[in-house]
Amino acid sequence: MTERRFLEDLAVGEFNATPEIAVSEADIIEFARRYDPQDMHTGAQGGSPAAFTGLIASGWHTAALVMRLLVDSHLLGSTPLLGLGVDDLRWPKPVRPGDIIKAETEVLSIVISRSKPDYGVVRLRVTAYNQHREVVYVMTPSLWVPRRNP
Amino acid sequence: MTERRFLEDLAVGEFNATPEIAVSEADIIEFARRYDPQDMHTGAQGGSPAAFTGLIASGWHTAALVMRLLVDSHLLGSTPLLGLGVDDLRWPKPVRPGDIIKAETEVLSIVISRSKPDYGVVRLRVTAYNQHREVVYVMTPSLWVPRRNP
Repeated sequence: MTERRFLEDLAVGEFNATPEIAVSEADIIEFARRYDPQDMHTGAQGGSPAAFTGLIASGWHTAALVMRLLVDSHLLGSTPLLGLGVDDLRWPKPVRPGDIIKAETEVLSIVISRSKPDYGVVRLRVTAYNQHREVVYVMTPSLWVPRRNP
Repeated sequence: MTERRFLEDLAVGEFNATPEIAVSEADIIEFARRYDPQDMHTGAQGGSPAAFTGLIASGWHTAALVMRLLVDSHLLGSTPLLGLGVDDLRWPKPVRPGDIIKAETEVLSIVISRSKPDYGVVRLRVTAYNQHREVVYVMTPSLWVPRRNP
């Protein structure tokens, strides 16, 4: 069993890499039909906006896949990854069928909560890449992390 | 068929409301098993962090559901909703089984692209509520919208 990690176990600058995941055309279409049914994501009418050619994943599918990678990387051991919010989320390049995605995380800041001093807020930079090392997704989430010794 | 809407058709301050959607326990667990397999979202081990009691939806599930509501509301008619990125994303309250979610949008700014003057960037504030009119999700996406007469 993975151990819990607490606020005291993290350091600014800590860097981690997630496993990788392959994204199939079927995955892209299934997610899109349910959550983002636009032609560029479902492949309906061969459609895609002028800016793109071919099927591209919903940006929210990319976001969901990267969350899966973060969970699988056990960044905080068995401590839950509880997000308060996200800043500066960008999708610089689309994810396409056959892409292989992985993410890297860096701890940007660690701040003890004033209102609930048993906890702190950890800001990460999360950057996800495709197999060509192109950035497909970047975001700065804030996680709510318990302290071991408040 | 819904008509296309262009940059010229939008105005700062424009307000829209989406349809609503009910979120079941099965929906929450299915999404979580695939994209965010943590006990508080899958219900495994009856688990939930101390801050919560009972099953709560993955924040990325909430994000995906709100995208579906935005697509279904045809905010830009048949013009695709193409997001460049998102700022200030927050989940002030969790979404729980049985919740009914709807969203409201407001146009915050409209800026013609310098590099590609056929397009502009429209910033929205999107706020999603549960059936108790509690805010469960807020974000400020930037959309890439074509001009009718560049």
